[in-house]
Amino acid sequence: MGIISDLFTPTHEGNLMKKKYIVTPGPVDVPPQVLLAMAQPIIHHRSPEYTPIFKEVNEGLQYVFQTRNPVMTFSSSGSGAMESAVVNLLSPGDKMLAVVGGKFGERWADIAKAYGLDPIVLEVEWGYAVKPEQIEAALQKNPDIKAVYTTLCESSTGAVADIKAIAEVVKKSKAVLVVDAISGLLTTPLKMDEWEIDVVVGGSQKALMTPPGLAFAAVSDRAVALSKESKLPKFYLSWQKALKNLEKDTTPFTPAITTTFGLQAALKMIREEGIENVWKRHARLASAMRAGVKALGLQIYTKDFGPTLTAICAPEGIDGKAWLKVLRDKFGVTAAGGQGDVTGKIIRIAQMGYASTFDVTTALSAVELSLSDMGYKLNLGTGVKAALEYLEQNQ
Amino acid sequence: MGIISDLFTPTHEGNLMKKKYIVTPGPVDVPPQVLLAMAQPIIHHRSPEYTPIFKEVNEGLQYVFQTRNPVMTFSSSGSGAMESAVVNLLSPGDKMLAVVGGKFGERWADIAKAYGLDPIVLEVEWGYAVKPEQIEAALQKNPDIKAVYTTLCESSTGAVADIKAIAEVVKKSKAVLVVDAISGLLTTPLKMDEWEIDVVVGGSQKALMTPPGLAFAAVSDRAVALSKESKLPKFYLSWQKALKNLEKDTTPFTPAITTTFGLQAALKMIREEGIENVWKRHARLASAMRAGVKALGLQIYTKDFGPTLTAICAPEGIDGKAWLKVLRDKFGVTAAGGQGDVTGKIIRIAQMGYASTFDVTTALSAVELSLSDMGYKLNLGTGVKAALEYLEQNQ
Repeated sequence: MGIISDLFTPTHEGNLMKKKYIVTPGPVDVPPQVLLAMAQPIIHHRSPEYTPIFKEVNEGLQYVFQTRNPVMTFSSSGSGAMESAVVNLLSPGDKMLAVVGGKFGERWADIAKAYGLDPIVLEVEWGYAVKPEQIEAALQKNPDIKAVYTTLCESSTGAVADIKAIAEVVKKSKAVLVVDAISGLLTTPLKMDEWEIDVVVGGSQKALMTPPGLAFAAVSDRAVALSKESKLPKFYLSWQKALKNLEKDTTPFTPAITTTFGLQAALKMIREEGIENVWKRHARLASAMRAGVKALGLQIYTKDFGPTLTAICAPEGIDGKAWLKVLRDKFGVTAAGGQGDVTGKIIRIAQMGYASTFDVTTALSAVELSLSDMGYKLNLGTGVKAALEYLEQNQ
Repeated sequence: MGIISDLFTPTHEGNLMKKKYIVTPGPVDVPPQVLLAMAQPIIHHRSPEYTPIFKEVNEGLQYVFQTRNPVMTFSSSGSGAMESAVVNLLSPGDKMLAVVGGKFGERWADIAKAYGLDPIVLEVEWGYAVKPEQIEAALQKNPDIKAVYTTLCESSTGAVADIKAIAEVVKKSKAVLVVDAISGLLTTPLKMDEWEIDVVVGGSQKALMTPPGLAFAAVSDRAVALSKESKLPKFYLSWQKALKNLEKDTTPFTPAITTTFGLQAALKMIREEGIENVWKRHARLASAMRAGVKALGLQIYTKDFGPTLTAICAPEGIDGKAWLKVLRDKFGVTAAGGQGDVTGKIIRIAQMGYASTFDVTTALSAVELSLSDMGYKLNLGTGVKAALEYLEQNQ
């Protein structure tokens, strides 16, 4: 038993009984059902036992992406699936538009540059979401843009874009629309087929409630057609390889089998709740969280906020990095900090995936106790009270 | 509990009490200690709790690769790490040598072609390992070869190459040596630093006894220097990104955290046994397996066999695919079949990773019972007897 008990030994100050909470916008807490599913003995990925599991997962993913299109699974981080959406759609010299309003929008541009493309960058002020008119203007100015790369929820700021309206303006052009929905998926409504989105990218460690290691790309017929002509090089991330294998209910390379067991269990939970209810739950919890934050007199950083996460400005006199450390080391609550220009200025908290009323009250209680501990004046319980009132009034 | 019990419901003929065995050369059976470690609650990968785990894993990997060089971890299949060894070392127009003696050697050439390179292919008859003289001759004929891509154990045939001798001939040239050690690592001795190998690639789901989803590339100073000049495009698989992050004990992208917990537990088991003992155990078990197969009058397919796996020719009158099906469906034992030209002609069985004496006797018992069931004449127990005698004589 030495091996296992060692693993549970805390690696910094604290003790074994100190209860820990993870409230970051990914990776998110994994439900015990999912962890337990992952404790199953391994099976071979090219066996009749694995096929029905993979099929069930693929159907579940289609439900989550709200599509009848194929949803490819890559054993990679979300960034791998993002890269796949660049290298499988484009060829050298192609024009692409990258909407950049935070760290993950930047990634679209960085991937394009890594492959020798010269992306047209649509800069959006951090905290705001891109407006459909901005994309429309960019497309009118550059009618030969082949693909628009945007983000459902920009996790670095919490801003949520109106993808439905964006899809409508992109539809008027020749471009395909690619949406990074990694942190937005399931927290924010997204209907791939109804809204006619060409590519949606997702990851396992967000509201899919599964450990990181699986990433997804759902692709329309137009996107598949482009992938047949695309000349940028690819091998591991090739859609053509993945699609050919998906037709036979398999993958071109050994998949993360155990993580797939976990995803199967998570998808069952999601389908049982129903996607409309999953969306509503996230919206309700995030609204309650914001109500609590506001009642404490704290500022929400995000201008175009949404249900994915709550970004809170560190109040005057409080250093955001020190605040995170108090939250984590004194109260056992791991939140996320700011990135780029807002490093040390904001903290980000999510009620994502397997989250309920009491994840909101836990997060707000931790916000209150940590700020108070740091000498910030507030009336303990003010935030929690406001959240509870919101939750009671909005069942 | 519905969610979990459903997962354990057999998906084809059989019942819940039918005990299953996986004897494929990867994925391999995952020890309960590793599965249990993976049931730990998730933690954030950029937190002081994760850092010591990642550091311990990296030190453990250096031990396994027998190197002081950095060992990068990618959240991907082994093929992702193989691709990284092409795109980070080479530039358009570069000459590379791919040793192709099976499906995984072919992969080196396929990756190169996907990136527009024109690989020089050294064809080796399936079942044989490349001879150092063949590589020497190829390097003399093409002194401008920048990198030699070869395989420690070619899993599709079981052939094991003499990498130490190969490293000696490659050293005389300007080329760097890249070794796909995915299935060979820990089953076959490999000493990266002592033998002066530039790049060694590995994967979690082989003798590292962890579920698939993590792949590794250990890189020498020369390889790192080449990666700074390489002009082939890369983003997710960039060594420069991975190395910069590794210096700070982190990864550029969200890692497969849970699989890393498993790997930590597996590495502890490996270090406790000691790598020399791990190598000896694999050699001993594979020799016992071969002794049993031969005693049954069956033929070993591999000419240059090694301790990674045993490839058995389907005897006259027995179809290899049907044999696999009987093994799996009637006896609950999942073995691997032949690939390419030997599809339906061989089966492949490994005692890889968490394997002991009784994995040999189980595999041989299953071979005997399945062949007998299919009408092949043999004296039951002959193979097991020979294996036991070998094991007793070679403690």
